[in-house]
Amino acid sequence: MVEVILHGCNGRMGQMLSELISKDEEMKVVAGIEPSGEAKNDYPVYKSFDELKETADVIIDFSTASAIDGLLDYCEKTHTPLVLCSTGLSEAQLGRVERLAKVSAVLVSANMSLGINVLLKLLKNVTKTLYENGFDIEIVEKHHNQKLDAPSGTALALADVMKDELDDISYNLDRSKVRKKRERNEIGISAVRGGTIVGEHEVIFAGTDEVIEIKHTAYSRAIFAKGAMSAAKFLSGKSAGKYSMSDVIG
Amino acid sequence: MVEVILHGCNGRMGQMLSELISKDEEMKVVAGIEPSGEAKNDYPVYKSFDELKETADVIIDFSTASAIDGLLDYCEKTHTPLVLCSTGLSEAQLGRVERLAKVSAVLVSANMSLGINVLLKLLKNVTKTLYENGFDIEIVEKHHNQKLDAPSGTALALADVMKDELDDISYNLDRSKVRKKRERNEIGISAVRGGTIVGEHEVIFAGTDEVIEIKHTAYSRAIFAKGAMSAAKFLSGKSAGKYSMSDVIG
Amino acid sequence: MVEVILHGCNGRMGQMLSELISKDEEMKVVAGIEPSGEAKNDYPVYKSFDELKETADVIIDFSTASAIDGLLDYCEKTHTPLVLCSTGLSEAQLGRVERLAKVSAVLVSANMSLGINVLLKLLKNVTKTLYENGFDIEIVEKHHNQKLDAPSGTALALADVMKDELDDISYNLDRSKVRKKRERNEIGISAVRGGTIVGEHEVIFAGTDEVIEIKHTAYSRAIFAKGAMSAAKFLSGKSAGKYSMSDVIG
Amino acid sequence: MVEVILHGCNGRMGQMLSELISKDEEMKVVAGIEPSGEAKNDYPVYKSFDELKETADVIIDFSTASAIDGLLDYCEKTHTPLVLCSTGLSEAQLGRVERLAKVSAVLVSANMSLGINVLLKLLKNVTKTLYENGFDIEIVEKHHNQKLDAPSGTALALADVMKDELDDISYNLDRSKVRKKRERNEIGISAVRGGTIVGEHEVIFAGTDEVIEIKHTAYSRAIFAKGAMSAAKFLSGKSAGKYSMSDVIG
Repeated sequence: MVEVILHGCNGRMGQMLSELISKDEEMKVVAGIEPSGEAKNDYPVYKSFDELKETADVIIDFSTASAIDGLLDYCEKTHTPLVLCSTGLSEAQLGRVERLAKVSAVLVSANMSLGINVLLKLLKNVTKTLYENGFDIEIVEKHHNQKLDAPSGTALALADVMKDELDDISYNLDRSKVRKKRERNEIGISAVRGGTIVGEHEVIFAGTDEVIEIKHTAYSRAIFAKGAMSAAKFLSGKSAGKYSMSDVIG
Repeated sequence: MVEVILHGCNGRMGQMLSELISKDEEMKVVAGIEPSGEAKNDYPVYKSFDELKETADVIIDFSTASAIDGLLDYCEKTHTPLVLCSTGLSEAQLGRVERLAKVSAVLVSANMSLGINVLLKLLKNVTKTLYENGFDIEIVEKHHNQKLDAPSGTALALADVMKDELDDISYNLDRSKVRKKRERNEIGISAVRGGTIVGEHEVIFAGTDEVIEIKHTAYSRAIFAKGAMSAAKFLSGKSAGKYSMSDVIG
Repeated sequence: MVEVILHGCNGRMGQMLSELISKDEEMKVVAGIEPSGEAKNDYPVYKSFDELKETADVIIDFSTASAIDGLLDYCEKTHTPLVLCSTGLSEAQLGRVERLAKVSAVLVSANMSLGINVLLKLLKNVTKTLYENGFDIEIVEKHHNQKLDAPSGTALALADVMKDELDDISYNLDRSKVRKKRERNEIGISAVRGGTIVGEHEVIFAGTDEVIEIKHTAYSRAIFAKGAMSAAKFLSGKSAGKYSMSDVIG
Repeated sequence: MVEVILHGCNGRMGQMLSELISKDEEMKVVAGIEPSGEAKNDYPVYKSFDELKETADVIIDFSTASAIDGLLDYCEKTHTPLVLCSTGLSEAQLGRVERLAKVSAVLVSANMSLGINVLLKLLKNVTKTLYENGFDIEIVEKHHNQKLDAPSGTALALADVMKDELDDISYNLDRSKVRKKRERNEIGISAVRGGTIVGEHEVIFAGTDEVIEIKHTAYSRAIFAKGAMSAAKFLSGKSAGKYSMSDVIG
C-alpha cells in the first residue's frame, strides 16, 4: 500500500485525487495539507507541513506556486519522494527543485496525462525527419473560456520538445499584425477559447501536398489525477533524481 | 453558348478557367485581356479593353485591384454582366461597383467556391440560436506557407456573416499578449500556415459540454474556377443588380 | 416554478437530472418513480404511478421501454405533459404515443442535446443543395466501448432527416464485403467504438475538390439532462400535440 | 545522374513521374515500357522488356499485377534495382519478389508517400504503450467515390504494423450486424467514400477520458510519385536485399 500526503487536498484536483485514491486498493491518503485546515474527507488535514504528524511514501502536489516553498522545505528535510504538479514556479523555486533532486526523488511534469506524455515522446521521434523533409510545424490548442493564459503550458511544452530537436526555431503567436510569408524555422501556436473544452492539443506537420496531424483530446480532468497516481506509485521507493512522466510510461 | 471575356486570362486562375471552359459545352472564351497581350490559348488576347474587338455575354475577372478601373470603364459603357473575383479593391473602386450595379448585372464574392457559400448561408441560419444558447464562436483557418495575409479574406467573410446576426461582436486575433479570460462577445480567429494547404476554414461553436464544428476543406483551386463558371452562366442575360454566390446556389 | 415528476429517477440520467434540477431556481422535482422505491434524493420515490400522491406540471422520462406502458396509462388519465426520452419503444407503444399526443402534450426526441438538434435543423437546410451539386454524403459516429448498437440511434436520426430531403436514398453500413464503386444515392454510415467517448457525430459532404464536415462532440451526458430540462420548461402548460426538440430551440 | 526505366510509363502515375523527373536535375528517364508502345514524352517507349535497348540504374514500376512477370524476368536477368509500386500481386509473384531480393535490390511499399511511412514508423513506437494502458485502437480511412476496394491497402498496412506489436489482434470491418460490445483485442476499420478525396487515414487511440488521433491527409497523388523518386535515388547502386520506405526516410 502506497501511503500519500496530498498537498493542496481541498482544491479541485485535490478532491478528485481524494475520490479516485479512495477507490484504489494500492494507494491511501494518510494526510492532507491545505491553508484552511478544513477536513473534507476521511483523512486528517493540516494547515501546513509544520503541523503534520504522519509520514508517507510519497507526496502529490496540486497546489499553487505560493505554497511551494513550505513543501520544498519539508522534502529537503525528510527526502520524501515528490510528484510536483503545480505550475508557474519562480526561477528561485525551480532552482530549489533541481537541488532537491540531488538528494531525493522528484517528478515534475507540465501535464500529468498519459496521452500528452506519449505525444511528447512521439514528437521527439518524428519531428526531425518531418522538418528536414520540408514539413512546416504548427500547433493549435483549444481550452474553455475561463482559462487565463494563452497559449497553454502544455502547448508550449509540445513546442519545446520539438524545438530541442531542431536548430534555431522561434515561436509565432500572432500573424495578424504583419503582412508577410511564414518563416521556415517558426512554429506557429494558436489558442482557441470557448465553452467548457477541457483541453485539446493538435500538432500539424504540413508538407508538400500532404499533412500529418497528431491530436490529443482530454474529456475530463480525471486523466491528470490518474497520471499523478501512476507517477506516485512509480516514485515510491525510488532513489534521488529528477524524473518525468516519460519514465513512468516506460 | 455563353460567350465569355476573361479579364486576367494569363494568371493562375485565368489559365485554369481557360482550360476548364474549353471542356465545357455550354461556355466559350471569345477574348482575353492581359497587360502583356500574349496569347497562350486559342482565343485572342488584348493588352486592354480599348483594343478589344469582340463582345460577350459576360466577363469573368480574376485580375488585381490595379486593373479594375479599366474593367469598370468598359462595363459602365457596355453594360456587360460582370463576375468580379479580384479582392483588395479601394473604397473608390467599391463605390464604382455599387453604382455599376444600378445599370448592369454585377456579382461579387469573397470566395467563389460552392462549399464556402453554402457555409455562409448555413451560418446565417444557426449562429443566433447557438450564440443565445451560450455557445462561444471561434474560427481556425489554414493555408499554405506562401500566403501573405492573415487571417484570410474568407475567414473574415465567415466572421462578418455571423457578426451581422449578433449584437456588438468584436474579433480577437491574438490572445498571447494579455492574461485574461475570453470575452463573451468576441469571435477568436486563428491563422495556421504551412506546406501547400489550399485552404481550410473551421467555425467552432463551443458550448457547455458540447461542441459543433463546421469545416470546409478545399483540395484544389479548381473549385474557385468552377464557381466562377457557374456564376457566369447564372449572370448571363440578368438585368441590372448586385448579385452574390448565394443567388447562384439558390 | 415548474414541478416535475422524474420517471426512472434512480438511473444514471435520473440522478443527473435530480442534481441539475436541484440547482435550477425555476424547476423542482416533486416525486420520482422507480421500481425499487428507494429514495436517493430529497423527494419521495414511488414504485409505480399507482402509488403516486403528488401531481406535477410535466413528467421527464429516462427509463426503459418495459416501464413505458405504466407511464402512458398515467398520462392518458391525467393529461400531464410528457418529455419522453426512453428509446427502443415497440410499435404498439409508439402507436399509443401518437394517440396520447391527440389529447395531451408529448415531446419525443432521439437525442435531447441542443447541439444535435441544431444539427438536424441545419441538415434540413443544406442537404438538398449539396447533394444536387454532386456532393456525396457520409456519416461517421464514435462512441465508448460499452455501447451495444451500431450505428447509433442519433446517427440514424441524422441520416433520416437527410433521406427525407432526397429521393431514393439507401444506407450502406459495410463496404468491406463487395468490391465495387460507391453508389451515388447511398449514405455510408460508419461506427467507431473505443474508450469512454461520450458521443461524436460527423456528417461529411464530399464534392469535387472540396469537402464540408459538420461535427458534434458531446463531452458529458449532462447535455442530455439539460436538454430534457429545457424541453420540460417548454412543454409545461402546452396544449395537446406532438412536439420535438426543434420546437424548443425555436 | 540517376537513370530510370519507367514501367507503366503512360498510366496516371507514370505520366506524373515523367513530368516530375523532367524537372529534377539528379534524375532522368532513359526509357519507358507500356503495352501500347506509344511515346508520349521525350524518351523511347517499348511494348515490353524484350525490345528494350537502354540500360538504367533503377526501374520504377507503377503498372498492374498482370504486367509484373515480365518485369521480374528482366530484373532476375539484369539485377537492375527495382522500386515496385504495383499492388495486388499474386502469391506466386510475391514469392518471386522475395527470391529476387536475394540477388538484387528491391524496394516494396503499400504506400509510397513520405507521410504514411512516417506514420507506420511512429505507430511501431507508440502502439504497445497505448494498448497496454487500456487504449482501444480504431482506423477511419476516406477515399474518392471511384475506389473499388474497402478498406484501403494503406489502412490495412497501418493495422498490420500495429497487429505485429500486439498479441492476438483481429480486425472488425462491420459492427452493424451484431448487437454486442466491442472486443478489447479488435481493431475496427471504417471506410468512407465520397467526392474526389485523394486519401485520408486516421488512427484513433481511445482511452479513459482521453483520445489520441494520428491523421494523414494526401492532397495530391504527386506525393506517391515523389516518394517513388526518393526511393529510386536511394536504391540506385544498393546491393541485393529487400528494402522498404522506412529505410529511405532513415
